Formats: sequence, structure tokens, C-alpha cells
Amino acid sequence: MLKNTSHSIIKFSEVDSLHVVWHGHYVRYFEDGREAFGKQFGLGYLDVYAHGLAVPLVDLQVSFKRILEYGDTAIIETTFIDSPAAKLMFNYHILSEKHGYVACTGKTTQVFMNPHKKELFITMPPFMEDWKTKWLKNK
Amino acid sequence: MLKNTSHSIIKFSEVDSLHVVWHGHYVRYFEDGREAFGKQFGLGYLDVYAHGLAVPLVDLQVSFKRILEYGDTAIIETTFIDSPAAKLMFNYHILSEKHGYVACTGKTTQVFMNPHKKELFITMPPFMEDWKTKWLKNK
Amino acid sequence: MLKNTSHSIIKFSEVDSLHVVWHGHYVRYFEDGREAFGKQFGLGYLDVYAHGLAVPLVDLQVSFKRILEYGDTAIIETTFIDSPAAKLMFNYHILSEKHGYVACTGKTTQVFMNPHKKELFITMPPFMEDWKTKWLKNK
Amino acid sequence: MLKNTSHSIIKFSEVDSLHVVWHGHYVRYFEDGREAFGKQFGLGYLDVYAHGLAVPLVDLQVSFKRILEYGDTAIIETTFIDSPAAKLMFNYHILSEKHGYVACTGKTTQVFMNPHKKELFITMPPFMEDWKTKWLKNK
Repeated sequence: MLKNTSHSIIKFSEVDSLHVVWHGHYVRYFEDGREAFGKQFGLGYLDVYAHGLAVPLVDLQVSFKRILEYGDTAIIETTFIDSPAAKLMFNYHILSEKHGYVACTGKTTQVFMNPHKKELFITMPPFMEDWKTKWLKNK
Repeated sequence: MLKNTSHSIIKFSEVDSLHVVWHGHYVRYFEDGREAFGKQFGLGYLDVYAHGLAVPLVDLQVSFKRILEYGDTAIIETTFIDSPAAKLMFNYHILSEKHGYVACTGKTTQVFMNPHKKELFITMPPFMEDWKTKWLKNK
Repeated sequence: MLKNTSHSIIKFSEVDSLHVVWHGHYVRYFEDGREAFGKQFGLGYLDVYAHGLAVPLVDLQVSFKRILEYGDTAIIETTFIDSPAAKLMFNYHILSEKHGYVACTGKTTQVFMNPHKKELFITMPPFMEDWKTKWLKNK
Repeated sequence: MLKNTSHSIIKFSEVDSLHVVWHGHYVRYFEDGREAFGKQFGLGYLDVYAHGLAVPLVDLQVSFKRILEYGDTAIIETTFIDSPAAKLMFNYHILSEKHGYVACTGKTTQVFMNPHKKELFITMPPFMEDWKTKWLKNK
């Protein structure tokens, strides 16, 4: 199971008039998590680009469980979901560093696209097969 | 079926390096839609506040279907989902004004909370019962 | 004097924990104002692009005078500053619709750039000369 | 001279369709810098709040010099400007980690306010005098 853990200090601009992180910012925390995962495991946007691919989101699910407040730090756990489908899927757990609880969970689904031809990949692109062989198959 | 339709001109700052609206901005479009719905039907944040309630999001689902580009306008259709549960639920359809297609669909679920006591309502608060009688029962 | 007036309803996500619009959002209001000006007078990003130009900001000045709150609407007045320099300059006045007062004033300076060659224009580009002749000289 | 240096990885969502950081995000980098400064020197929003004060921005100046791109990290240098006036002022230098150049400079001015009485301080509040004595006078 491939997992990255990153941290994001809650910013003043992320907190709304109810003194909690506005729900829309969690979507960016998910992207922060994906980017940190990509940096650790060679699967960042720029790595994917280098293979002539874009990976747009097609599905997003978020479950808000507890609040995050200013002065706290979000711990973002991003886990790769292995699947034979031509999709890139991640699970997220966002925890409060101060309280230890899970503030939010979520899942994203991305597809592989040729950005110029605007064509979707029906099968896993070779680059991704190689990546999976390297990181998952040998484990 | 209670539905509000609002419009949001795509801003330069909402478009990412792939020349399409960044996925996280759709979450704000949903909130824009809820606020426009609330203004039309007396169910805005300030109306809810006036009754001593907050309505935090507990669930968010987004399905991205087509792209929105700079120069286009998002048409946001926000539909109230009637339910006996003590929840506030909306469906969203976001359309491209230029192309006519559905770019995105989604659903949000909010709960009723006393912001000071931090207590959730297990049953529908009286304010919301009255609102439903006014807008739904008499139809 | 060329001036555009546009309106932006204050969004819940723009209000911070002090219950006022977070200062960073005014920069986007300025861009909203420029875009509305561009739409009215044929000087939008896409018009400028069509002539092979980009107009990046090089200077921004903002003076915050009064607050804007949720439930209010920002009235954005964007005024073209005529100058012989190879620059695009605007003044901004942001007013509270509810209170009538000026909440914020500001000024932006943009330069003309060939986005591919990354070259700055030292003199006014022909497209801009034509635009000024059309909108300013004949007045 | 009190100075804090912090780092912010450029996020995909911060980059616009010209493949550079959108100018409005620099305002948040400045706030990130102020928060990192506040954490280092005991002058964060929460420290200031604990003394019954808010410190709203009244002036913002930004000079954009070079671009920042995805894959780079912004180095944010935040320097306290000492002054007898009842104001809180900072200078900013934002550098590209990859290129070493200065991408942006700026300055912010904040005032001291009693958030409940909505009164401005004409003279330096005692809390701030003590802070200056601790961090500046003894140096």
C-alpha cells in the first residue's frame, strides 16, 4: 500500500466566518496530498506530462467529519488505490495535528488523457504500467 | 421541485495551465448556486443564522463531465432535494453557456447545527419545517 | 474618461473569521473589474491575445479604507488611465452597495509582452494605438 | 533587523493559463510570510488576538519582477519595518528557489484595532511596545 503523509499549516485566509476551514479548501488539500505523493513516488503532474499525458479529475467525493481551526496543522494522508482500470485513484484522510482526530476523508478519480488530441485512454497507458510494475508489483 | 438558475462568468484566475477551470472552483460554483437558491427562496446563510442555526457541509460529491474554458459562462442549476431527514441536500448541474453541454453534476449534504452549543439537530428544526410547509407542501 | 461599473455579490467563502472580506480577494475584484471593462470596451484578455499579446501585471497598489461584509455587494468602478507610456493602467474604486461608502481604492500597471518570445514592448503596440484612437482620441 | 524566511511549494492550482503563478496568489504568500514571521517572533494573529487586538491591512504594494512556475518553490523573506508610528509594517522579497532571482517585492501596512469597539489605536498599543522592547531595543 503506497501512502504519502504531508502537512499543511492552516492559513488565516482558509478559515471562514464560523472560525473553521471553509469546506472548499479541502479539495486543495487533496491536491496538495496528490502532489506530495507524486513527488515521493515519481507520479507528479510534471512526471505525467513528460509522458505526454494529462490526468483530469472525473470524480470527487468528500466526507466532512470534524472541523479544522486556525492555529492547527492538517495532516494529509494520501493512499494510492490499485486497480486494473485505466484510472488513477486516491483515498485521503485529513487529520488534525492538534486533536488527533480525522477531520475529513475523501476519494478522487482521474483519467489519462492525451491533452493535444483530447483523447481518453481506455486501457492503462504504458507509462503507468511501468510505474505500477516498479512500485507495486515488486513489493 | 424547487430550482434556482444562476450564472457565473468564468474568471481568468479560475482557469489553470491546461486552459480549463480548475476542478476545485466547481465547489465554489456549488456554493454560489446555494446562495442564489437561498436568496430566491429565503434560505440563505443569513436567513438560517437569523434562526440561530449553522448548516455545515458533511458530504460533497462531484462528477466532472466536460470542461469549462475562459470566455464562457457557467450556468448553475441548484435543485432542492426533499427528504424527511434532518438534512439540507441539493443537486447541481453546471452547464456551459457557450456549448450547451453539462460540464459537471454534484450533490451536497448539510446538517443543522447550533453554532454555540455545537449540537447537531437529530430532527428537522422548526424553522426548516416552516420553510418546507411554505415552499413545498402547498404546491 | 473610460469607466466600467460592475457588481460582485460578496460570497461566504470570501469572508474571513473577522466577518469581513479577506483583503486578498480585492485583488480578484480588481481583475473582475478589468475583465468587465475589457468586455465593454473590447480590451479583454482574449481581445489582447487575438493580437498576440499578453499583459502581465508589474505593479499593484491597494488602499483598504472600510470593510465589506457578507450580505453586501461590491460595486467595482474601473477607470482607464491614459498615458503615453507602453503600459496599461487602471484605477479602481470598490464601494459597498449597502453602505454607499468607498471600501477600497487601488491601481494596477500592466505591460505588453509577446508571450512566445517573452519580449516586452518598449513602445505602445499598434493594436493598443488603434484602440486608443478609437476610444479616446475621437472623444 | 528582524527577518523570517519561509518556503511555499508552487501548487498546480496557483498557476494560470500562461503557466505562471497568478498575481493574486502573491498576496497570500505575503500573508504566509507574516504568519511564519509571527510564529518565529511571537507576533502571530493568535498572539495579537490574545491581547484583544486585530491588525487589519490598510495598505498593500506589490511589484512583480519575474515569473514563478509550477515545479518551483517560492522563498518568502519577510522583514519587520521598525517605525514609531502605531502601525505594523513588513517588507517582502519573494525569490525563485530554482532560478535564484527575486520574483516579487512588496510592502504591507496594518493598523491596530480593538475588534469589538472597532476603534483604531492612535498610539502604539502596550503589547506592541513590549514586543519591540523585547525584540528590537535590546539588540
